[in-house]
Amino acid sequence: MSKKLIVIGGVAAGMSAASKARRTDPNLEITVYTDGEYISYAGCGLPYFIGGRIASKEDLIARSIADFKKQNIDVHTFSKVESIDSDNKKVFIRDLKENKLYEDNYDKLIIGTGARPFVPNLDGMHLNGIFTLRTINDGLNIIEFLKKERPKNISIIGGGYIGLEMAENFVENGCKVTVIERAPHIIPNMDADMAEILTKYLLEKGVDIRTRETVKDFSGNSSVKSVVTDQGEIPTDFVLLSIGVVPNTEIVEGTGIKLGHRNAILVDHKMNTNVDGILAAGDCATVYHLIYEKDVYIPLGTTANKQGRVAGENAAGGNAEFKGVIGTGIARVMEMEVSRTGLSERECQDLGIHYESRKITSLTAAHYCPTSKSIHLKLIAERDSGRMLGAQIVGYAGAALRIDMLATAITVNSTVSQLIDMDLAYSPPFSPVWDPVLIALNQF
Amino acid sequence: MSKKLIVIGGVAAGMSAASKARRTDPNLEITVYTDGEYISYAGCGLPYFIGGRIASKEDLIARSIADFKKQNIDVHTFSKVESIDSDNKKVFIRDLKENKLYEDNYDKLIIGTGARPFVPNLDGMHLNGIFTLRTINDGLNIIEFLKKERPKNISIIGGGYIGLEMAENFVENGCKVTVIERAPHIIPNMDADMAEILTKYLLEKGVDIRTRETVKDFSGNSSVKSVVTDQGEIPTDFVLLSIGVVPNTEIVEGTGIKLGHRNAILVDHKMNTNVDGILAAGDCATVYHLIYEKDVYIPLGTTANKQGRVAGENAAGGNAEFKGVIGTGIARVMEMEVSRTGLSERECQDLGIHYESRKITSLTAAHYCPTSKSIHLKLIAERDSGRMLGAQIVGYAGAALRIDMLATAITVNSTVSQLIDMDLAYSPPFSPVWDPVLIALNQF
Repeated sequence: MSKKLIVIGGVAAGMSAASKARRTDPNLEITVYTDGEYISYAGCGLPYFIGGRIASKEDLIARSIADFKKQNIDVHTFSKVESIDSDNKKVFIRDLKENKLYEDNYDKLIIGTGARPFVPNLDGMHLNGIFTLRTINDGLNIIEFLKKERPKNISIIGGGYIGLEMAENFVENGCKVTVIERAPHIIPNMDADMAEILTKYLLEKGVDIRTRETVKDFSGNSSVKSVVTDQGEIPTDFVLLSIGVVPNTEIVEGTGIKLGHRNAILVDHKMNTNVDGILAAGDCATVYHLIYEKDVYIPLGTTANKQGRVAGENAAGGNAEFKGVIGTGIARVMEMEVSRTGLSERECQDLGIHYESRKITSLTAAHYCPTSKSIHLKLIAERDSGRMLGAQIVGYAGAALRIDMLATAITVNSTVSQLIDMDLAYSPPFSPVWDPVLIALNQF
Repeated sequence: MSKKLIVIGGVAAGMSAASKARRTDPNLEITVYTDGEYISYAGCGLPYFIGGRIASKEDLIARSIADFKKQNIDVHTFSKVESIDSDNKKVFIRDLKENKLYEDNYDKLIIGTGARPFVPNLDGMHLNGIFTLRTINDGLNIIEFLKKERPKNISIIGGGYIGLEMAENFVENGCKVTVIERAPHIIPNMDADMAEILTKYLLEKGVDIRTRETVKDFSGNSSVKSVVTDQGEIPTDFVLLSIGVVPNTEIVEGTGIKLGHRNAILVDHKMNTNVDGILAAGDCATVYHLIYEKDVYIPLGTTANKQGRVAGENAAGGNAEFKGVIGTGIARVMEMEVSRTGLSERECQDLGIHYESRKITSLTAAHYCPTSKSIHLKLIAERDSGRMLGAQIVGYAGAALRIDMLATAITVNSTVSQLIDMDLAYSPPFSPVWDPVLIALNQF
């Protein structure tokens, strides 16, 4: 009799796991349960969907239920796994349409339940016009609201990637946009000096950036009318709450599955939990950080895909490993691009690492090219060894993807002196004759 | 008494050397002799200058004679060093305006005489309408000819980067463009299968690509009327000859300076020649190839800058080294981008290296992004060790600069397994959730 794999979750980690399990073992029985309506969609694309740059929600869906069916993967939507009986290798599923509970048996179980937006317990949270953005339905709800209400005063709570990606859409539509960030600066995973460059740009574009400011509650009757903070009141008719996510791990209660950083499911390099036969992957799980040398919670779509694939392969009898992450991130905010990898200066300080940093301003192309625009680049290296530890970039089109060069260097433990005169590509439309990365390396 | 440095050559290597020497030793006496009119210009920008994308020739000039004067660097244009007396540490200079010969003494001499286009000895080479492109004056001559004669039938001889960069301008102006390449395919430093992708694109754009075809001579009365090849006759009223360059090294005759690959001046990692007190840098010199593990001749602007800087520092008493190159190159050809680094499959075969290659087609951004376009990527790794050896990219905007990731990986001797799950930047406008580089690595 063939073995059976159950996958909980139908987005990045879950569907990557199911596909990879199928490719690894053509005979494995594979069933996916997801409480959502949509599967295998690109959550990271939602800001662009809302902005109208993506024509339809179908474009966000990588593969349909029918596609998976062809692979002999059985996908059940509106099917919420409510609990796991790890002793008897069973899950209990609620059919959300029929409201019926039933059970299913597994040999291997992959938990890919993802994460949900963190929603603080504040007065007025129930008011119309307050949104989070995580699922396709969130996106559709926002689009409907924007069409119907045409809000003019937008408050974005949280100055991370998603919040700022969304700011673009509103500014283009002539809205007054306020970004409220509790931390000392936006893009809190970058250093203050780099974030400052983006702040300046956004201020010039008319976006109000309020940092070190904490939201207290929301006021209004049925619809939100203002955001009340510790600094005052901001008139508002639309709120996007994007202050991070929390892993969906309530399901593991009673299973003995250990949780790690920020209550994410603790997994090893093979995506095994501590409970036999149960793996986890994606935004519900921890990930190993190669520089911290410990398990952390950094939920990202790209990591979810990698972890899902490893979980799927191993659940199907393989022996794959995922080495880990180094905290790489990238975003486009209007015409500006920001990216980072490795450790920031603040992280080095927190970890007690002796480091040197160098920051330069250069150009994305030869100075005489019409497309040449500014790029700001910071490199961070360990003081004695010269080992590359981190990099941050803020600049115009063509700037940010240079971070991958530095991610590569950090991944393989390169030192500044190994990289300082490397043979990078040069042609006027692509870089100055000294690439900004080389200019920065030469400052050490 | 202060020491004296003479630099021969006023472009990339020479002026980088002079500047770095000044920064290394504020008291050094520094004199630059160049036979040209313009100094410190970006030769790589000339195709864009001719195409009208760069407003004036001054934009191509990084720094003027006056700028160097402020640094106390004495620059003599129209001043051709005709010979070197290395025993007595003297150079003999001809003032090209006054046609007078004079001499000057040096303690250190840097030869940065560059290269000139290779011009074959063919019948009809003297005809009007046949050009090479190397200097600003070449560019001005071409611009003048194009304005006056408005040629319609363009023959570009040589399917390398410069020839193809120039094709763009002519196609945009509605000309009939023919590229004639003696090798089996254009971009001869890439593999045939990758070059084929660009060939197909150019054919679709109406460019005639003729490979394995050798130019025999040119016919016409005073102006060129056709290119005669071993395959037939091509009506032509403008010819760009771009079949490579030869190093300007006649000057070393009698000095005992050793020449290397393709008669370029043989230099070590410190840019020393074999003659005491004489260094060389840039397109007149060899460069060490880190994978070939020998000195080769690959003249490129970016290498010239790096070598010039090392030569300048060392001539001023420093102790700098330039590790070498790995054959990185990049070009934009209309909407397409091409890049390469390390070894091609053909080079691996020539060197007897056992290799594996993988080739994938992916997208430059998430599939649902309007800017998402195709990218073709080939990776080459050593068979047993998995060491990365080479990469080639052909694709649309945003594709080619990924080569720098692979140049970084090759520089520090990374293996496929080290890189296979690395934490690259992901956000929809920048890459698919699996970056094309990761997709290709996962094929090994």
